[in-house]
Formats: sequence, structure tokens, C-alpha cells
Amino acid sequence: MRDVAIIGVGIQKWGELWEKSFRDIFVEAALNALDDAKIDKLDSMYIGCMSSGLFVGQEHVASVMADYLGQRHLAATRVESACASGGLALRCGLIEIASGMSDLVLAGGVEKMTDVSGDGATYALATAADQEYECYHGATFPGLYALMARAHMKKYGTTRDQLASVAVKNHDNGSLNPNAQYPFKVTLEGVKNSVMIAEPLRILDCSPITDGAAALILCPYERAREFTDKPVIKVTGSGHATDSIALHDRTSLTTLDGVKVAGQRALKMAGRKLDDIDLVEVHDCFTIAEIIVSESLGFFKPGQGGAACEAGETRIDGKIPINPSGGLKSKGHPVGATGIAQVVEIVHQLRGEAGKRQVKNARIGMAQNMGGSGGSSVVHIMEVE
Amino acid sequence: MRDVAIIGVGIQKWGELWEKSFRDIFVEAALNALDDAKIDKLDSMYIGCMSSGLFVGQEHVASVMADYLGQRHLAATRVESACASGGLALRCGLIEIASGMSDLVLAGGVEKMTDVSGDGATYALATAADQEYECYHGATFPGLYALMARAHMKKYGTTRDQLASVAVKNHDNGSLNPNAQYPFKVTLEGVKNSVMIAEPLRILDCSPITDGAAALILCPYERAREFTDKPVIKVTGSGHATDSIALHDRTSLTTLDGVKVAGQRALKMAGRKLDDIDLVEVHDCFTIAEIIVSESLGFFKPGQGGAACEAGETRIDGKIPINPSGGLKSKGHPVGATGIAQVVEIVHQLRGEAGKRQVKNARIGMAQNMGGSGGSSVVHIMEVE
Repeated sequence: MRDVAIIGVGIQKWGELWEKSFRDIFVEAALNALDDAKIDKLDSMYIGCMSSGLFVGQEHVASVMADYLGQRHLAATRVESACASGGLALRCGLIEIASGMSDLVLAGGVEKMTDVSGDGATYALATAADQEYECYHGATFPGLYALMARAHMKKYGTTRDQLASVAVKNHDNGSLNPNAQYPFKVTLEGVKNSVMIAEPLRILDCSPITDGAAALILCPYERAREFTDKPVIKVTGSGHATDSIALHDRTSLTTLDGVKVAGQRALKMAGRKLDDIDLVEVHDCFTIAEIIVSESLGFFKPGQGGAACEAGETRIDGKIPINPSGGLKSKGHPVGATGIAQVVEIVHQLRGEAGKRQVKNARIGMAQNMGGSGGSSVVHIMEVE
Repeated sequence: MRDVAIIGVGIQKWGELWEKSFRDIFVEAALNALDDAKIDKLDSMYIGCMSSGLFVGQEHVASVMADYLGQRHLAATRVESACASGGLALRCGLIEIASGMSDLVLAGGVEKMTDVSGDGATYALATAADQEYECYHGATFPGLYALMARAHMKKYGTTRDQLASVAVKNHDNGSLNPNAQYPFKVTLEGVKNSVMIAEPLRILDCSPITDGAAALILCPYERAREFTDKPVIKVTGSGHATDSIALHDRTSLTTLDGVKVAGQRALKMAGRKLDDIDLVEVHDCFTIAEIIVSESLGFFKPGQGGAACEAGETRIDGKIPINPSGGLKSKGHPVGATGIAQVVEIVHQLRGEAGKRQVKNARIGMAQNMGGSGGSSVVHIMEVE
């Protein structure tokens, strides 16, 4: 297998992008990535997108985007794994380069979520849960994560303040990220007094509905220096695992086995241990998700993720910085794009380009992206040369 | 890159499968394939599925299926390229094995199309066309292919009888296929007098709405003999190309450039020329599609595909047998599954297991699968050892 490098990244200011279409959004980020890599021709492309059929009435996504990007006849593929679609697009691109089939591959993600009316977005997102055993009975994602939060609070004593501390920390970080959808700070009291969504989760415990895209340019590691004079980022580990998508079929409500397995697979491939990781972007679709993921990956013992965040251990200057980008919470969560945007942040950090949110001495970063309530998880490890 | 073999195939009787759910259908075909390969554990899985969000309200498809198949924590990925999703699933599986990342990979496809009411299926299928420039203005696929048919008739003198001869031939073949949705014969007069859908296409020019799935088990070629004592089928060529998904952006209405490019890429990889191919399954979503595809792949000169079919050159005993399975027309067209089912047929033919529809001396087969009106195309070449 050939080693793979990231030689370009692209993103844009995320938000409710009324003036831009589905294809505009993707192509903007893709062109930014091509410019960053100083290339204009691709061998192949993978696009993570969760539910463009329900959000904008458009399937056949990769063909639309290849053409609109000026790459007609490109071998272009859409991959879907709910909110882990972006992470999977990176993994597929990595595998294609590793195989020797292609050299220059764009791995991107996109979602246009604000073109639906009424409860359209809630319905589309709910299709990431089990249609027959969860959605049909009225469960939506805030409800499912609320069950996990209550179970975690009961089992480990996780507190309402600890949940809120995740939102406070991520908005602190996001306030330093010019591309974040909500680059403002929030307070503990503000989170705890925000509108109730699904007890105990309030609206400031939830990631938002977002339009956005992100893109990476990959090439064989040994060719990276042909294209870029920036620090070359090597993707050293890739782990992917599924789990039951229905909560009732899991062994536990308070841990995420798919995340655990994907993390272990990525570390094994990279030949690294958790202590080697300098920073991590995790899938904080809800505040409780960041806590459980930080435990399932092994950064904290079960039940200690909330206290660790509250104690500042996951801040940019903490023991293990989590979500220096602002996370899904502040940066936004255009579902198919999220997994790629996490890696864009890791690349910026490892290149030393993260400005006011720069993690000191960042050499090895991890990105953890997941679908639904953890029914799929993709973990990547990136290292700067 | 490692060579890849197909060591197992699975399918079921296709049709309106009211008594089976989306997940039942996939798992039935997948278990058939695992049984055929005599294995029970996978390293990875790719599933082609076009629009399960719109058809059954379920995204996050690969996680549902991995769990229901008894393979929890499997690295499982859904790929989508409209009606070419199945072909792409095979291509992704092939690339993963070629890379050395995995050894035992299931490549499958599934669609449950009959659970929607009213014009739900027509709407879902139309999302494979250009949402902004075609669907929004009322175009549906019968209409788009009718434009192509009229252009082909005007430019080349293709006749109504020639279109009908494709349906007659494919139903003749399908009548010999126990898994076909419509295993009955039709006559020229029957096709020409059937209900008008979009002039000149009548209902017997159109492939049906179908529930169904299909699956292949792939492994490194050098390991195939560990698992099967049947003839080992090697995948020697894989070509993938996109094109504009909007008809108005094409260079021509009467040829399919994406199909042409994908075919050339597959032949180049296999080191074969068109004369080497003994039989081919093509994407006959409409009768005109088979004619244009047979020309775009190069089996006939532009404008001669209709006459060739009428003259019997594409029958099972003809010069180049096309769609011995019965094609999408008679066998059915569960969109995400079609590309995999084409390869299931090629494997049966190359193994000599095709019964009454067996093509004599079949050593090298081709499968051509496409999305929308040719906005993406995937071509594979399979050879028996």
C-alpha cells in the first residue's frame, strides 16, 4: 500500500447560505482546495453527502459536481454514511491512492440543509436512525441523544454543568474561527437557560442546521513535494466501523462501541498509541456526544469525560485539546461535509496555520466522525512530516 | 495492485416484494452470495443504493445492512451514482482489495422501490437528472430518453420496429431467467400497441419499478482457490466516467460519451479489445438506451444498433449476445442493485451455469451500468480462468 498525503484543503464560511446552491457550495470549497494544492486536474473524486435526495431533490451527486467543477468524465463517486459520510470519502480516496489506481484525488463533503421547509430537515436527519424501530415511532436525534445523556448522568453522575461546559469551550474556540457559523461565545448560564429541545438537552447543547462544504486534495506521499511547499501532512491511520444504528440493540447506552473499534483500528494502522495524539476533532453533534466520544476513544475513563471538560483539560491549552475548530457546535454541521472539515482543521493545525486557535507543538492529530447515534464511525490520524 | 476474483454471487426472484422489507431484501441476496462463496465473515462491504431516503426513509444504509447481516462493526460503505450505484460498489470493492487493505469484500446493491405511493417513484428517480435544469421544469426519465430516441430516429432513421425488437429480444431471454420480474415473452405488435408513456416510448419500451438486491463476494485472485471449487472469475477491467447529467450540456443526444470513455478505460485496464468480448450486459433502462449504449461502447457503428438488434445479432446465439439475462427490461430494475445483478449474470455465464440462456463458449464478459441518462457509467470486464 502506498502512503497518502494531504496537499490541499478548502472550506468556506458556513451558515445559512441562501444565495448559494448545493452545487455552488461544493464547487467553492473544491476550488479552494485545488488552489491550495496548486493543481487543476484530478484523477478521481469522492464526495460525502448524507441526504441530498431529501434536502434538495438531487441524487447522482458526484456527476453533478464533477461536471460543475470543470472535470467532465472524472471518475467521481458519492459515499453515504449519514453524518460520517465525509470521513468515509477521505477513507475511500486514501484506499484508491494506496491501491495505485489514482494519484490526484479530491475527497470532499457537502450538504445544503436549509432549502427544506417545515420539519423537512428533522425528517431528513432522522433517516440516519433506524427507520423501522426508531423513526417510525417518532424518535429524532435530539431525543436519542437525550436518552444517552440521561443514562450517562444516572450511571456516572455527569452534571448539567458539565454538558454545558462542552458548549462553552467549543464556542470559545469557534469564536476564533472565521469560517464558523456561530463564532460567538456562550456562557454556562446561557446554555442552561436556552430553549429546551429534549430533556436534558437544550438548544445550545445541539449542533445547528448548516449549509457548507469542505475538500481535501490527496496524493501519494512520495509525490507531495511536487505540488506543495507547505508542510506535508501524511494520513497514517484510517479506521472505520459500524454498529447497530438502533440504540436498543447496543450493549450500552453510555459508550459507543463503533467509535471505540474505529479508533483502535486507526491507531493500529498508524502504529501509534493514544498518548501520541496532540489534538483531536470529535463529532460533537450534541454536548453529550463529545463527552461519550472522548471516553470511547480512550482519552478519559468511562464517566470522566464531563469532568475533564469542566476542568479545562480539553481546551486549546489543555492536556488534550478537543475541537479547537469550535466543533460541530459552533462551526456548524452540514452533515456530509463535517468529516472533511474536521480534517481541514487538523491540517491547518499541523501546518501551524490555525491563527489564534493554534494548538502549540501540534504534530499528530486525530479526527473522529460518526453517523447517527454512532451507527458508523470513521477515525483518521494525520501527522506532519 | 492485486488482481481481484469473484468467488460468490447472490440474487433472488425480483418483483414487487410486498412481504419483504428493504433490509430483508438485501440480506437475502447477501446471504446467498456468502453461501455461494462458502464464507461467513467479511473484511469490508460496499452497497450500491440510489435513493433509499426517498424510497423508504432510510439513509445510513450500510450500517443497517452490516448489522442485520450479522457483521456488526464491519467497515461498510454505501455508494451512490443513481442507477450506476451497483457498478460503483463493485469498483470500490475491487479498489479496496487491490490496495491490500482487505481480503474478503462484499459488493452489493439494493433498492426497495414499491413502498412509495402516488408519483413517489417517478420523483425519486428524477433526482438522477439535473434538479435545477431538468427536474424543476418537469422532465422525467421517460421524457429524457424519448428525446434521445426521437433524435436517434431523425439522425439515423432508427425505426419504431427496431426499438420494439430490443424489448422482444430481452423478454425472450428473460423468459429463460427464473429470477426475472417479468419472465414472459412479448411481440413486436404487443410492444408497439402498448400504452404510450412519452412519445415514441411505450410502456413495453421501459424497464419496470422493482424491489430487489444482488451481491458479489470478492477476494484477492491468488486466494480464490481457498474458497471455491467453481470456475474462478477474474475482474480484469474496471472503467468509470461521469458526464454532464443534463442532456442540454452534452455534445450529442445520440451518443453517450460517458459510456464510451468508461468502456475504453475498462478495455485498457484489461488489455483487451472489443472483439475479445463474448457477451455483454448493458443498461437497457429503455429500449433506446440499449441501442445507443451498444453503439457508444463500439459494438456497432453509430446509427446501426437498432438494425443489428432487429437482425438478431444481439440474441443469445448472435454475433455479440446483449443482455442474455433479460436485461433491465424483463429481469427488472431495482436501481441500486442493477449493476451488481449484471455481473451476477456474467459470472453465471462464465461459469457455465446459465441454463437455457447459456451463451456458448463464454470466456470474457462485459457489464455496462449507467446512471440517469448517462451522467455516470461504470464498465467491468470479467474473465474465466
